[in-house]
Amino acid sequence: MSATTLTPAPTALTMDQLFNHWMGHRNLTRKMIEKYPEDQLFTFSIGGMRPFSELVLEFLGMAIPSLHGAAYREWKKEEELPLLAGWKTKPTTKQELLDRWDFTTKELQRIWKDLTPERLQEEDVAFGQWPGTMYWLLMYVIDNEIHHRGQGYVYLRALGIEPPFFWDRL
Amino acid sequence: MSATTLTPAPTALTMDQLFNHWMGHRNLTRKMIEKYPEDQLFTFSIGGMRPFSELVLEFLGMAIPSLHGAAYREWKKEEELPLLAGWKTKPTTKQELLDRWDFTTKELQRIWKDLTPERLQEEDVAFGQWPGTMYWLLMYVIDNEIHHRGQGYVYLRALGIEPPFFWDRL
Repeated sequence: MSATTLTPAPTALTMDQLFNHWMGHRNLTRKMIEKYPEDQLFTFSIGGMRPFSELVLEFLGMAIPSLHGAAYREWKKEEELPLLAGWKTKPTTKQELLDRWDFTTKELQRIWKDLTPERLQEEDVAFGQWPGTMYWLLMYVIDNEIHHRGQGYVYLRALGIEPPFFWDRL
Repeated sequence: MSATTLTPAPTALTMDQLFNHWMGHRNLTRKMIEKYPEDQLFTFSIGGMRPFSELVLEFLGMAIPSLHGAAYREWKKEEELPLLAGWKTKPTTKQELLDRWDFTTKELQRIWKDLTPERLQEEDVAFGQWPGTMYWLLMYVIDNEIHHRGQGYVYLRALGIEPPFFWDRL
């Protein structure tokens, strides 16, 4: 084999598939928010962990800033992004959380168009703190949502509420 | 553009990256099993959910059979696979669970070598029941582990035990 021959690494997931994977999980998390009784969403917890509203705020705080950084090589936290200037105050109602969720969905769709497959394979230091490949960062953001949402399932069960089916991503 | 020109869909994750993603999550789940006090592993639960040992058995019951089906187009449940004939009785100790975990890791590494990127993009009906693309099936198996392991984090916290860091996948 010639030293100059480079076979491209075989694909497991395409860009579209990764994005749809993410959006499917975000749809499921949205269903979880809707299932919560308004008060328990902001107060109920187990074992000293955060209530589900705080977990949702973490997901929101990571999603746009991470994709923005991956796409534009500019690392700005939620409070530093002009796009999220309206998020200075904490939501106190389920509707406000849902509104931020839907706003985020639209923005992710917009920013994703500016993300290249080459960039997904680049190393960078996310937010000046976490070195890693960009596909890895986005997987981390998605997995973190799956992980903490799993905690929300326990909260709902403990409250006697049937959570949405895990496979329901539409 | 000519109608015969087909640009390959841009890659988000390569085969190696998907496999390492899976193995990293399995490493974390193994750390969780190790953290559990032996008795609580098989008994402790919240909200009528399954104890963590049962969740681990679900992960084990899905991993090899799903990858086997994805790679070899043969859908056999845990109890139908000759490879898993030794699994007829339920583990009753943490060590037995860890032994099955490590056995599974080695087998997944072996079977993965027989999985092609073309097959990952094929539609099939997993176990004669669930239609889907093969990459989707494997993502489902991984996500299901992240999801239920997140429940295990709540159990551990409720028991006053510090779970492993979510980012620690080594």
